[in-house]
Amino acid sequence: MTPEEERTAEGILYTDFYQLTMAQLYFRYGMHERDAQFDHFFRSYPDYGTHQAGYCINAGLQWLVEWMQTARFGEGEIAFLRSQKSASGQQLFADDFLAWLKQHGTFEGISIDAIPEGRVVHPNIPLTTVRGPMAMAQVLETALLNRLNYQTLIATKAARIHQAGRGRSVLEFGLRRAQDKAGNAGARAALIGGADFTSNVGLSSLMGLPPKGTHAHSMVQVFMALGQGELEAFRAYADVYPDDCLLLVDTIDTLNSGVPNAIRVFEELRQKGHEPVGIRLDSGDLAHLSIRAARMLNDAGFRDVRIVLSNQIDELVLLQVLSQIEEEAKAYGVDADHLIGRLIYGVGTRLITSAGDAALDGVYKLVAVCQDDEWKPAIKLSETVTKVPNPGHKRAWRLYDRRQRATADLLGLYEEDPAAMDPVILRHPTQADTSRTIKRENLTAIEPLHVDILREGKLVYDFPPLEAIREQRRADLERLDPGVQRLVNPHIYHVSLTEKLWNLKRDLIREYK
Amino acid sequence: MTPEEERTAEGILYTDFYQLTMAQLYFRYGMHERDAQFDHFFRSYPDYGTHQAGYCINAGLQWLVEWMQTARFGEGEIAFLRSQKSASGQQLFADDFLAWLKQHGTFEGISIDAIPEGRVVHPNIPLTTVRGPMAMAQVLETALLNRLNYQTLIATKAARIHQAGRGRSVLEFGLRRAQDKAGNAGARAALIGGADFTSNVGLSSLMGLPPKGTHAHSMVQVFMALGQGELEAFRAYADVYPDDCLLLVDTIDTLNSGVPNAIRVFEELRQKGHEPVGIRLDSGDLAHLSIRAARMLNDAGFRDVRIVLSNQIDELVLLQVLSQIEEEAKAYGVDADHLIGRLIYGVGTRLITSAGDAALDGVYKLVAVCQDDEWKPAIKLSETVTKVPNPGHKRAWRLYDRRQRATADLLGLYEEDPAAMDPVILRHPTQADTSRTIKRENLTAIEPLHVDILREGKLVYDFPPLEAIREQRRADLERLDPGVQRLVNPHIYHVSLTEKLWNLKRDLIREYK
Repeated sequence: MTPEEERTAEGILYTDFYQLTMAQLYFRYGMHERDAQFDHFFRSYPDYGTHQAGYCINAGLQWLVEWMQTARFGEGEIAFLRSQKSASGQQLFADDFLAWLKQHGTFEGISIDAIPEGRVVHPNIPLTTVRGPMAMAQVLETALLNRLNYQTLIATKAARIHQAGRGRSVLEFGLRRAQDKAGNAGARAALIGGADFTSNVGLSSLMGLPPKGTHAHSMVQVFMALGQGELEAFRAYADVYPDDCLLLVDTIDTLNSGVPNAIRVFEELRQKGHEPVGIRLDSGDLAHLSIRAARMLNDAGFRDVRIVLSNQIDELVLLQVLSQIEEEAKAYGVDADHLIGRLIYGVGTRLITSAGDAALDGVYKLVAVCQDDEWKPAIKLSETVTKVPNPGHKRAWRLYDRRQRATADLLGLYEEDPAAMDPVILRHPTQADTSRTIKRENLTAIEPLHVDILREGKLVYDFPPLEAIREQRRADLERLDPGVQRLVNPHIYHVSLTEKLWNLKRDLIREYK
Repeated sequence: MTPEEERTAEGILYTDFYQLTMAQLYFRYGMHERDAQFDHFFRSYPDYGTHQAGYCINAGLQWLVEWMQTARFGEGEIAFLRSQKSASGQQLFADDFLAWLKQHGTFEGISIDAIPEGRVVHPNIPLTTVRGPMAMAQVLETALLNRLNYQTLIATKAARIHQAGRGRSVLEFGLRRAQDKAGNAGARAALIGGADFTSNVGLSSLMGLPPKGTHAHSMVQVFMALGQGELEAFRAYADVYPDDCLLLVDTIDTLNSGVPNAIRVFEELRQKGHEPVGIRLDSGDLAHLSIRAARMLNDAGFRDVRIVLSNQIDELVLLQVLSQIEEEAKAYGVDADHLIGRLIYGVGTRLITSAGDAALDGVYKLVAVCQDDEWKPAIKLSETVTKVPNPGHKRAWRLYDRRQRATADLLGLYEEDPAAMDPVILRHPTQADTSRTIKRENLTAIEPLHVDILREGKLVYDFPPLEAIREQRRADLERLDPGVQRLVNPHIYHVSLTEKLWNLKRDLIREYK
């Protein structure tokens, strides 16, 4: 694969073949430039088996839009499509369609409304709404789902791990177990959702952050193979990095070799006027070893050096480790709060793969088609009533109660305004006999969730810097009920429809049944 | 992110930061150009929870090597490293090290032996052996694991799905649920492991395959929203693609609308001299619906049109679907074998994410360091004896028994030759008192597993085309015991050490304990 071939494979052909066969059909039937609207949303939170998410963190939009602005059909793309044959041996894509694609096959006619990155999001609320000429809005589907599903999945996992870690630093260490080139998107999403830094150097350079990491077991092994030992390896590290000395202590034996050797080197450093940074534990019982190591460090006068925990960490492992520390620390003369306060988590495989649920079920559904300047709502029936998408051009609002907490997301038709409703009636999205009524006076805010991103291909949004996205995430999580944030069996957050939208959906279903 | 920034983030900085801090330490201690050897291997097969792999399919090597040949430190990379600060505020990477990196920071000194792509592989046998100057062999670790772990994971899942599908065609449909740009590597791995084609257009163009797919629900919805219906949508499809007419029949109601409409359009097609291709079922009880649809198609004289099943398919779902068809078909007057013979599987999310186990635990361990032209074996002790890597420069052989079946993989020192041993003694890799003895006459072949790939950066291997890789996979699977291939609770394949390697490992462990 040459770099040129790689660019082709990651360009506009990064899509499913049926998008192109459908595009040609729309072209043949004169529908290709007719405006259509697609909603991107997920149907259910990640379910990790033994634990479940009660919210997601939206991510991925900026990189998708940047890709859209460069993707187009060049000579190579057209040549490949021209080479495709029908079962009868004829050219599958006709020359007139290919000529149209060459000239108009860009995303320059596409408009996007979306919920910004970093926001808390919930099922069935469109995260992204795409309007534009039908053929290209259809071609966009695959890349959009590919980019947005994955980053939202990983940002969500990162938020959970950050939450389980009680605010201590989370370092993203997953590049080696990431899915090929997704390591960059995954690290970016982790940084949005809850990781403070990443070990990924290239991605750190993109995000303007310092990458993190010190040394691996192999450095200690090199010294051992050359007839020296762990102590010499640690001394070498302290020599080269006297102010950044964080030592991995489990290459030989954590408590009998690693920690004592680290303490010896820390003492030597201190004598030279440098303060050591910490140790890292990467195997064994992390709770027990961190208590024992903390005791040894405390006794040696290093109460402030950090203890980095790594090795198969996720939100449940952290729950367990911290609870075990709280039970067990005292018996070893260690203050649990002080120990927890000095922890840092290096999180690899289980964050970058969203262990337990490795895909978000985000979908991209046609909800309206424009005919004679009038938008016609579209619907897809389904064997499962919960899978029938909400039709039409819509908006979503977040309702805040008197405690300033988000109490529901409300999905309605574009022309509606819940601020003018009193009371606000929230219809259950699928159960006809279930609704909730809130007096307007009991709502402190009704916040529209979508912002304009693209208007006919033109960017009308300033993508915020990482720190602003994180600030949005923190603000949203503060306003989210703790029950909804519970790591296991969370409360269900209300996602509701307005009366008007509910009625439209019911009428369309009746019409087609 | 500009395309230039993206190339930087996917270039040589696509690594963990500690690789660079260690490289500088080796530079400072004059060890950076000393030869070291690292082995890449996985410790355990994927465990999907309710089912487990008994073998893996090796994949990813070609794309890794192609990346290695272009990755280097340019001005931008060096400038980013120069901007990194120590905790004391000083420049973390010194100018002399950066100058060395700029000039020598390539993989031109690296040699690689590896097991070819498409081969059946097992735990603890090095899939890839890297030798070269220590600093750059260390920097390579992250990218190597990232590229090889993921493709091997996905090729393995594809082999299992292909196996569960009893040889029927498997189409890879996962791009929308793939992990950002990993969609291409994942589809390539799927094609190596067991998928026949993919819907991914760009990747198909790279691999020289026709991409697959016809239409989505949205096409039917468009016609419905414009006041027409499913039948008109199907007719339009048949009109544009008369020889490639495969219709998705579950947008409204599979048995009461989709299949009858498809049959009507198929009859019209046939009258015009075209043969229809098939239908696709994408929701509901796929076994039951395929039986009912087959009956309707048979009764209408379309016994040969294909039935594509999609929606959350994996190896266990296929086991269940095919077994249900065998039990239930007869009651509907359908021949189960005939029905199974016309099935095609469209496999999305659960293949491209390796559902159940989303990461292969591949590692990259230092096993030897060169000093004064002599290789010193390196070892890493561990709390768990099964995690102690096998030291030294090694080779691996596959032993075939009298049935021409692979009976064990044998790992030995480089200078050993099991062909000259009689009997061949296979030591259990961790249990001192367990071994197996095979008389030479009971072995029909002793096959070396590794081939030369790179010699000091120079490619000395012709990467085979996809079809040859697949042929290798088919040949290896034919020679693998069916018990080892079982989808649930497979037999354990023997991976053993020679006496000499066992003794070396034991002596090194004793020395360091």
